[in-house]
Amino acid sequence: MAGNSIGKEFVVTTFGESHGKCVGVILDGCPAGLPLSEADVQTELDRRIPPKPGIVSGRVEKDRVSILSGVFNGLTTGAPIGMIVENKEAQSSDYEAIKDLPRPGHADYTAGVKYGRFNDYRGGGRFSGRATVALIMAGAVAKKLLNMVDVDVLAYTKAIGTVKMDQSPNAEEIKERKYRTAVRCPDLACAEKMEEEIVQAKKESDSVGGIIECAAFDVPAGVGEPLFDSLDSDIAKILLSVPAVKGVEFGEGFDAAGLKGSENNDPYQMQEGKIVASTNKAGGILGGISSGMPIVVRVAVKPTPSVGKEQKTVDITKMKDATIKVVGRHDPCVVPKAVPVVESAVAIVIADHMIRAGFLPKVLKVNE
Amino acid sequence: MAGNSIGKEFVVTTFGESHGKCVGVILDGCPAGLPLSEADVQTELDRRIPPKPGIVSGRVEKDRVSILSGVFNGLTTGAPIGMIVENKEAQSSDYEAIKDLPRPGHADYTAGVKYGRFNDYRGGGRFSGRATVALIMAGAVAKKLLNMVDVDVLAYTKAIGTVKMDQSPNAEEIKERKYRTAVRCPDLACAEKMEEEIVQAKKESDSVGGIIECAAFDVPAGVGEPLFDSLDSDIAKILLSVPAVKGVEFGEGFDAAGLKGSENNDPYQMQEGKIVASTNKAGGILGGISSGMPIVVRVAVKPTPSVGKEQKTVDITKMKDATIKVVGRHDPCVVPKAVPVVESAVAIVIADHMIRAGFLPKVLKVNE
Amino acid sequence: MAGNSIGKEFVVTTFGESHGKCVGVILDGCPAGLPLSEADVQTELDRRIPPKPGIVSGRVEKDRVSILSGVFNGLTTGAPIGMIVENKEAQSSDYEAIKDLPRPGHADYTAGVKYGRFNDYRGGGRFSGRATVALIMAGAVAKKLLNMVDVDVLAYTKAIGTVKMDQSPNAEEIKERKYRTAVRCPDLACAEKMEEEIVQAKKESDSVGGIIECAAFDVPAGVGEPLFDSLDSDIAKILLSVPAVKGVEFGEGFDAAGLKGSENNDPYQMQEGKIVASTNKAGGILGGISSGMPIVVRVAVKPTPSVGKEQKTVDITKMKDATIKVVGRHDPCVVPKAVPVVESAVAIVIADHMIRAGFLPKVLKVNE
Amino acid sequence: MAGNSIGKEFVVTTFGESHGKCVGVILDGCPAGLPLSEADVQTELDRRIPPKPGIVSGRVEKDRVSILSGVFNGLTTGAPIGMIVENKEAQSSDYEAIKDLPRPGHADYTAGVKYGRFNDYRGGGRFSGRATVALIMAGAVAKKLLNMVDVDVLAYTKAIGTVKMDQSPNAEEIKERKYRTAVRCPDLACAEKMEEEIVQAKKESDSVGGIIECAAFDVPAGVGEPLFDSLDSDIAKILLSVPAVKGVEFGEGFDAAGLKGSENNDPYQMQEGKIVASTNKAGGILGGISSGMPIVVRVAVKPTPSVGKEQKTVDITKMKDATIKVVGRHDPCVVPKAVPVVESAVAIVIADHMIRAGFLPKVLKVNE
Repeated sequence: MAGNSIGKEFVVTTFGESHGKCVGVILDGCPAGLPLSEADVQTELDRRIPPKPGIVSGRVEKDRVSILSGVFNGLTTGAPIGMIVENKEAQSSDYEAIKDLPRPGHADYTAGVKYGRFNDYRGGGRFSGRATVALIMAGAVAKKLLNMVDVDVLAYTKAIGTVKMDQSPNAEEIKERKYRTAVRCPDLACAEKMEEEIVQAKKESDSVGGIIECAAFDVPAGVGEPLFDSLDSDIAKILLSVPAVKGVEFGEGFDAAGLKGSENNDPYQMQEGKIVASTNKAGGILGGISSGMPIVVRVAVKPTPSVGKEQKTVDITKMKDATIKVVGRHDPCVVPKAVPVVESAVAIVIADHMIRAGFLPKVLKVNE
Repeated sequence: MAGNSIGKEFVVTTFGESHGKCVGVILDGCPAGLPLSEADVQTELDRRIPPKPGIVSGRVEKDRVSILSGVFNGLTTGAPIGMIVENKEAQSSDYEAIKDLPRPGHADYTAGVKYGRFNDYRGGGRFSGRATVALIMAGAVAKKLLNMVDVDVLAYTKAIGTVKMDQSPNAEEIKERKYRTAVRCPDLACAEKMEEEIVQAKKESDSVGGIIECAAFDVPAGVGEPLFDSLDSDIAKILLSVPAVKGVEFGEGFDAAGLKGSENNDPYQMQEGKIVASTNKAGGILGGISSGMPIVVRVAVKPTPSVGKEQKTVDITKMKDATIKVVGRHDPCVVPKAVPVVESAVAIVIADHMIRAGFLPKVLKVNE
Repeated sequence: MAGNSIGKEFVVTTFGESHGKCVGVILDGCPAGLPLSEADVQTELDRRIPPKPGIVSGRVEKDRVSILSGVFNGLTTGAPIGMIVENKEAQSSDYEAIKDLPRPGHADYTAGVKYGRFNDYRGGGRFSGRATVALIMAGAVAKKLLNMVDVDVLAYTKAIGTVKMDQSPNAEEIKERKYRTAVRCPDLACAEKMEEEIVQAKKESDSVGGIIECAAFDVPAGVGEPLFDSLDSDIAKILLSVPAVKGVEFGEGFDAAGLKGSENNDPYQMQEGKIVASTNKAGGILGGISSGMPIVVRVAVKPTPSVGKEQKTVDITKMKDATIKVVGRHDPCVVPKAVPVVESAVAIVIADHMIRAGFLPKVLKVNE
Repeated sequence: MAGNSIGKEFVVTTFGESHGKCVGVILDGCPAGLPLSEADVQTELDRRIPPKPGIVSGRVEKDRVSILSGVFNGLTTGAPIGMIVENKEAQSSDYEAIKDLPRPGHADYTAGVKYGRFNDYRGGGRFSGRATVALIMAGAVAKKLLNMVDVDVLAYTKAIGTVKMDQSPNAEEIKERKYRTAVRCPDLACAEKMEEEIVQAKKESDSVGGIIECAAFDVPAGVGEPLFDSLDSDIAKILLSVPAVKGVEFGEGFDAAGLKGSENNDPYQMQEGKIVASTNKAGGILGGISSGMPIVVRVAVKPTPSVGKEQKTVDITKMKDATIKVVGRHDPCVVPKAVPVVESAVAIVIADHMIRAGFLPKVLKVNE
């Protein structure tokens, strides 16, 4: 399963399963001199859980982070930062009954083929959305680091099911409003309809998906690399590692396919002595390198595969057709929980590339 | 610029610029014992150039591959395979006039910020679509390797501008028909309209984009890894490194965001003693691991940024507003040329992961 | 500090400092299906501490391993294995007094230059020999894995100070005898003299170094890669990451420099239908690939830099000459403790390469 | 065979075989703005061949480098630098006769086990010393880069067979004198005896080995990383990838094992307002990080395994005992040729680590 690390300078390695002892992360390459406390990380973990029980799973972990290494006198030392969150609310018994019945849309079947009887199937094991807690912890550090150079990474819910927010809010609007809504959408009217969409799906023992948009503001021009390690390549890679994400697009994205070149190009102009683009259809990245405009990326999140409705599956031991109703505590929509995960994932990649490009030194210059 | 390598077992490193001596690739980790000749690679290179001059750039390279290493007696040895194609048709003079005027939608500006006056701007340099010739060469080897285990990777044009092919053809239809059309679309009626779309854009000194779909047939279940090195993560990463690609989606992709869980899940059933899914909304990947169904991915290709129409830009030396009409030999639509590139890119990742997962040994067992 | 991971298939990432909360390791890529318990790892940890208080530091940690992830029902799952040992016996106060006085021969000065005031200097921090506990934990898993294919990796003390064991014992002799002596030398008479050497150094408030030999028995021919990832390259890399190691040599090593080719070559001969070498001056590796003979490597361990004798140093705050007598709890000789570390390090590399070469599958076939 | 790349920032990938079309290298991550011409690289290639035919192989390649990419207007661009040297003097017929008879001390047998009948055995193929031409090319660039920050890496012959140079010369002495002798030893009297040693071995149809010392002068303190990516780990790794190297040691190396701590520690003192060590037994590296003192490393080079004397081997087709006299054009001692290879290898690692540590920017500031 080697493949649990990502990044070249800011290297994130995750471990832990849904029903094991803990979920954890090792951060190697974080610059020395960053103020970091457990409270910093805890704030981000707390944001993961929407405040309305009606729209999330019954499993609400009171996740408490422990920093194991890499911090001394409240500052990072340059050594690897280890962090864990213990699992406390696992109810593995929910899963014994269905371990021979792969849940449609889940990794049960593919993991079973790959790891055979050794796979830890409890709660999806390593494939559970719970593994994203590790991304949140790493993202908390990445975001603190980016704040040192005034970069803000902000994700929010753009669509839930068929309800879509049309305009793109600015940084202030996202920051101020998104955590005021349970669905993490900064358009308060839209948020209400999204919530209804989720509640309705839950009533029907079904689930809904959605779209998350993430923008990174004030990333300087010149961050990224051409070709394989392009900024968009690396952002896409980490986002598709988030469970339930099925697509990613930058700027105009798939809509660009239907435009003319003259419509899709972003013209340059001088503004107060600086070169700027007058539009941002590229989503802030050209040739894999940031242009100085906001980096804009959207991901498609599929509806939660765990639904109470009866579905067809097979019994892998008896090798015959079967049906399944997924019981247990499941989110009718994972989008609200996925918002800080997407934000963290994008922040991790941008932090990595800003170190690579020399915009963040390996030992921070901090005022005494 | 370190970032010109991709893959963990089947490692591709590319080099070369649009107007330099050559474009090349080093393939490290190709199993020993694969029959490989320059003709094998040449066939793929030849397919890159659509047969209708009307719809492509005036620069038609007669690209000839040379294999520099790694092959002995017509078989790969296990040593790194070096391949180059010399550049012969470069007209660098086209670019001198505009070197101070970054072309909107191109990497001129971002590369200039990153590399300053050292950037090789001629023809887009390292950022040119010409760099994809390296992917074609590597892809030719990957596809031969995959053929040893009966895997077929097939890309085709799904949309050009506003013209879209609706159904998804099967492997035979793609193989048999796509190279019969200049636009590489297996729906012959649709292909005609696409061609008109390109011709019309060219007439208007403009350009169009499109969508390419790629399917990998007969990939066994169990290929891929969870999380960061998931099969979809790695495919997305390589595809977003292809110039002009702005989005990638798997299976239902962005449409999945609007579906219910009960609609988007692929139910399992027994079929002739084997477990299969009765639909393929997941696009053949669950939890980052192949399910045995075809792997289906689509990319959004933006319209060529080089257009003859006048566009606003700035003069980076004089630091003042300017206009540009991009002359030189440009494709009004890069989609047809990008089809074999996408196919190659996906094949490279699948070959890498099939070696990782043990489906391809490091020394092939070949019958004498 | 990114650089805390090693390996390509069996990837070891370590974290933790001497006086922090814990020392830990994440093992990514361990095949699924390996029986693994905390007791397995504990056995190896216990062997790290020589039984004679006279020859080691006063700091004797009762190290207890916790497995955090990657094991289910007593078997590895293929997911990353996290393991930690808490630090309990740290006495940081010993270090406050000398934090401005870099200890000669230690990393205090170089770490201070690199990380500035952010460096965790307590007990050597990340540079402490205590970090090798992580290697022991990873090595315990590597050795269990190698046992599945009958490979034994065995290190022992070859020399302490001026006392040297001349002959090379076989696997049985090493296994049976080395843990019967406090210095981990299988020659019992020699071991006694070595012990005296250490006791004598301690009496003089001084320290001694030594040489450790490690042999890997029954590694099949064909493990390793040519050039940069040669088996000897990777073994040398990991061994030089062990604190206090200043040299590494294979087979005849430095003595080979003085031999004639006709003396140093190992002739082949048929033996019971198999090809064997009649000598093993190469130390089991030719062209970076194992030959089927035992892999033999030796490392030079420098004398512990912490000595009670007065030494010259500088005060880095006052920038003037100073003297230091290193108090605190230090080993007069680290060789006995380093024996299982060297064994672990070599086992880690061989496990990694055996997976790479296909001698260990990613999912083990275990009898039910 | 994936394993033909090394480095994290300054990444070297090599390819090519002894009797193939060429030997080549791709350098990814060289900073932009370095003046680089084919003449710069050619100078280093020319130094590889000792001027006295009596002490080297009859195969004297007139190696001519071609730079394929990454240089524009005489300056590196930041894009990967491709370089090749064509093979012209290969006489493959020499090898047909012995392809079933693995030469003792060569990689013939181990490569045959690993790659089977696909191995390119001609002239040792990928395992030939000729592959080191790629290191020389990459090293030429690394050395130019290091010269920008006044770092000098200088290797020389310390011993040939039983003849050993005792003192350690300074940078000026090495630079000025080593290329005045055919054996690359800066002690002219000693060099003469070394030459005799080689001539004598040749007369006896035998060969000799030796020791090469390499020192890197003026590397600032603070270069390197703790643990796995320590400067000594990475230097050891690359040096053991050089064919015929069987050991590596830093500073006092194996002799340190016999010293007391009080003898082996390097005391610090103030000198003209700066902290220096008054001795350099550590060889310039403590805790994996440079101390500011010269980095001193020595390698043991085994005697050339190709000797004209009759040796025992086996016929791998007939599976029976056999004898072999290695004919063909072989060096009776590879040490003189290996001197620039060792120098290049060390320079590559130091360049990589100086970029990693921020001492070399990714875009050089060059005066206009």
